[in-house]
Amino acid sequence: MKFICQQQAISQAINMVSKAVSGKTTLPILSGIFFEAKDGQLRLIGNDLNLSIETYIEAEVIEAGNTVIPARLFTELIKKLPSSDVTFDINDANVATISCEDSDFKIVGLPGNEYPELPIIEEEKTIAIDKTLFCNMIRQTSFAISQDESRPVLTGALLEMNDGKLSMVAIDGFRMAIKNATIKSDLSSKAVVPGRTLNEINKLFSGSDAKGDLKISFDDKQALFSTSQLRIYSRLLAGEFINYNQILPSEHKSTVRVDTDKLLTSIDRSFLMARENKNVAIKLEIKDDFLTISSNSEMGSSLEKIHINLEGHDLEIGFNPKYLMDALKIIDSEEVYLEFNNNVSPCIMKPVDNDYYTYLVLPCRISK
Amino acid sequence: MKFICQQQAISQAINMVSKAVSGKTTLPILSGIFFEAKDGQLRLIGNDLNLSIETYIEAEVIEAGNTVIPARLFTELIKKLPSSDVTFDINDANVATISCEDSDFKIVGLPGNEYPELPIIEEEKTIAIDKTLFCNMIRQTSFAISQDESRPVLTGALLEMNDGKLSMVAIDGFRMAIKNATIKSDLSSKAVVPGRTLNEINKLFSGSDAKGDLKISFDDKQALFSTSQLRIYSRLLAGEFINYNQILPSEHKSTVRVDTDKLLTSIDRSFLMARENKNVAIKLEIKDDFLTISSNSEMGSSLEKIHINLEGHDLEIGFNPKYLMDALKIIDSEEVYLEFNNNVSPCIMKPVDNDYYTYLVLPCRISK
Repeated sequence: MKFICQQQAISQAINMVSKAVSGKTTLPILSGIFFEAKDGQLRLIGNDLNLSIETYIEAEVIEAGNTVIPARLFTELIKKLPSSDVTFDINDANVATISCEDSDFKIVGLPGNEYPELPIIEEEKTIAIDKTLFCNMIRQTSFAISQDESRPVLTGALLEMNDGKLSMVAIDGFRMAIKNATIKSDLSSKAVVPGRTLNEINKLFSGSDAKGDLKISFDDKQALFSTSQLRIYSRLLAGEFINYNQILPSEHKSTVRVDTDKLLTSIDRSFLMARENKNVAIKLEIKDDFLTISSNSEMGSSLEKIHINLEGHDLEIGFNPKYLMDALKIIDSEEVYLEFNNNVSPCIMKPVDNDYYTYLVLPCRISK
Repeated sequence: MKFICQQQAISQAINMVSKAVSGKTTLPILSGIFFEAKDGQLRLIGNDLNLSIETYIEAEVIEAGNTVIPARLFTELIKKLPSSDVTFDINDANVATISCEDSDFKIVGLPGNEYPELPIIEEEKTIAIDKTLFCNMIRQTSFAISQDESRPVLTGALLEMNDGKLSMVAIDGFRMAIKNATIKSDLSSKAVVPGRTLNEINKLFSGSDAKGDLKISFDDKQALFSTSQLRIYSRLLAGEFINYNQILPSEHKSTVRVDTDKLLTSIDRSFLMARENKNVAIKLEIKDDFLTISSNSEMGSSLEKIHINLEGHDLEIGFNPKYLMDALKIIDSEEVYLEFNNNVSPCIMKPVDNDYYTYLVLPCRISK
């Protein structure tokens, strides 16, 4: 097997597929990257059996073949080579000789035919969505994905398609984030995608290559996220996702309209004081035209006053400031609505300028 | 005590003095920043008894006085305030009320008169040196300061003044870095400054405020590094520093002249392979017009070839690549000289375009 390719092209491709290579694997072959050279193309795969990433780059193929090269050492080495042609010559014992200008390396590889096959998605259902929009859906919900492995299905986000609408929903027991988007599809289905897969997709497409559509295909067990250049295979999470619509309050008694950035910076400062305590709660007092945020600790106290528009009742309610900040950071609207019923019911946060995003957060008890 | 100052000015001043505030102190008052308001100025001090940093900013002083405010919480809080006037009102119980626009904080402080006095330097010796030049001296030597506390004097760098020359010398048992500078002083003296002090000085002056002279005053136990705005007090290290001139070889049998950047990038790549081994050594073969750098590990091997000018004998010699890279990274000259005697004697590295810098590194054994 022998091929020549551009240092920058292969370095970029390795960076992408190596996101699916785990450092801690019991199968040695999975700590490597799979390479297959044929028909003027080099195919690269990283795979940890939960997530696989596959891409292709142009290469001058002198002798077709395949091999597996240890990912960590190889990735760093290629990155440090000069921006020039790199020649790969892999012998029958899977020793790769890599030459670039005055540098020569030998790396001991593994046989390519022992590398696991990529999953096959049966009876696939397919939708298409703009890449930037899908990355935004991830950015606005993934922080609310549960980290608690005791309920595996909540360590992913629900993707629900219905009536030309795609919803992404994440719940961690304290808060819930829902992002909706319009899609050109009448498919009615759902799937729970692991949080790690979504975060890697967001990283892969948030960069320069963010134009165009992402195709999402799935069956009961697997999903494939693909563009012309990149294919990301992911296991889906089994189990029934929470019926999230049931959690949303059907009405509310108070609505506050407030500047997003002012609310965020005020809570941020209150958090500094609150986090000196075990109970990190901050107190929100809503009365007339003002929202007052206060926190206390042994170190001292904080008091922030923000002008608001209030419709409905006055209220005193406690929150974990982190849960409010997480959502305020990713809401792009200049103002948000906060909807309340009472101080033991969830608060709903929504952007003022659109209906596509809903965030629910549970209040917490505050010491009097 | 009451004063008003600009958020940006006090935030910047706190950032500077808090570098001398230790998170792990047994004296609670040292985990705070000392504030003294009088005569239209606010004086700030951070102090961990080894290192103290003192600065002044303009303030509207309404009631003079002093206090100590916990550094960590206070620093973060001030940083997050809007860029506006900040009012400080400290009552007799040392509770500070801090107000800025619609934010109010109370922080429990400590009595200012319990804060330790700054050191007094007796019979001081003084020199002046350009700040940028002094920071460069630190940058080019401090990486060779020993981390090994069993020989305390080597955890600092020697500052030696003689005949209008200032030398900074750092030794860690495997390598030695010497940087010389010309100063306008006929003072003949020396002092060993802790590595931490030098690194903080480098951080404090490497930024925008790098113009003008730094005044260095010292006696047997303390040094003061001062500008018009900032005063840094440091303990000096006791004990006799190694007689470094004795270590420098008086002659050499081979001189290699080589491109600094090419040598650095080649060693950097060889290091990737070498570090897979316990013995991270790389091999340099110097012969005719070429320097060949090779390394081996279970993962594979590397071979780099660089064009050189050689005067003298051929040589095969082993090095810890990290020790060579540390120096190559901070030498600003396009080319360097490497001087050798044999493969068990130290190598000297020097910039080609000036005599101000000398780096000595011990070779290591290479497996045949």
